[in-house]
Amino acid sequence: MRSLLKKTLDGRKIILASKSPRRQELLKMLELDFEIRTKETDESYSENLKGAEVARYLAEKKALAFQGELNADDLLITSDTTVCVDDQILNKPENKEEAMKMLKQLSGRKHEVITACALFSKEGLKVFHDSTEVHFRELSLEEIEHYVDGYAPFDKAGAYGIQDFIGAIGVDRIHGSYYTVMGLPLHLLYKELKNLLEKK
Amino acid sequence: MRSLLKKTLDGRKIILASKSPRRQELLKMLELDFEIRTKETDESYSENLKGAEVARYLAEKKALAFQGELNADDLLITSDTTVCVDDQILNKPENKEEAMKMLKQLSGRKHEVITACALFSKEGLKVFHDSTEVHFRELSLEEIEHYVDGYAPFDKAGAYGIQDFIGAIGVDRIHGSYYTVMGLPLHLLYKELKNLLEKK
Repeated sequence: MRSLLKKTLDGRKIILASKSPRRQELLKMLELDFEIRTKETDESYSENLKGAEVARYLAEKKALAFQGELNADDLLITSDTTVCVDDQILNKPENKEEAMKMLKQLSGRKHEVITACALFSKEGLKVFHDSTEVHFRELSLEEIEHYVDGYAPFDKAGAYGIQDFIGAIGVDRIHGSYYTVMGLPLHLLYKELKNLLEKK
Repeated sequence: MRSLLKKTLDGRKIILASKSPRRQELLKMLELDFEIRTKETDESYSENLKGAEVARYLAEKKALAFQGELNADDLLITSDTTVCVDDQILNKPENKEEAMKMLKQLSGRKHEVITACALFSKEGLKVFHDSTEVHFRELSLEEIEHYVDGYAPFDKAGAYGIQDFIGAIGVDRIHGSYYTVMGLPLHLLYKELKNLLEKK
């Protein structure tokens, strides 16, 4: 089967700058061939930034880390996912206690998940983002502990993956895109790739 | 890792009556061991039934087809997914033309996906359902044809899978559970299994 995007992408090399197997799996849904190239980036940000600004800032920072290293036909995709509750940002938990604390905070209420992407190439830098509201029912302590012990969600902002056990049993509804919560706003990424490449 | 549900499920044999690989994948997220047992069921229903009633009726019908065949410790799970738009139910498309017609009808608007489940065992029959609103942006004819030709969605009510290419590029938001759209309302199924087994 010929890919829809590949027609416009002819000759371009797509590079995904993410170690996340979830993001790699998501990008494959767009029928793209791509390579993975990762770089350690300092993920600190100014406290003046709020919600989407943080995700956008970090996606851009991850892209600019490749400045001077891209070839003329390279098209780099970076992204950052931020979990916000009560105007507070939940980062990746450092240990079991922090993970359990985050899940207790998310239990029985809604929060916001923002994923920003940056596209970096000879056409320049383009940053965009999408936001989804996620609602957890009340989680029991047993469920939270079982999840943290069994799934070790230490690489995940907010200490959970919606595609994991806790997302299956605990998330009763979302408002927005599921893929944005998983780590890539695929509908926007597709649109932006199409726009970028049709303008060539 | 010990399953949370298995503790209460001790000694029960879970049977999923579905050929759908998606449903099998979803049920695994609840950390359950189960076997697949399928039976051809006539999926016709009275025209007097609307939306959720159809899904509930068919889930129950699929369960009752096993009457007299279950052992004392068997717990059967059946389900049915219904796609509704304009008070009309979209079934599985019979051919390319019908699939394309359905996707054109869903393009640029919202519709409702209802999945009903039945649990059938010595405790009796329990039917429940969940409903999710799905919104497609405007799809191009090229996108629709590419999807139908490449993914052959003839086993899918409404002619699409949200976990496929067309769901990735075309669904910009849902309101409800993603897993309900995929084919099992996992949060409800978990709750009902827990309730049923704790009452033992």
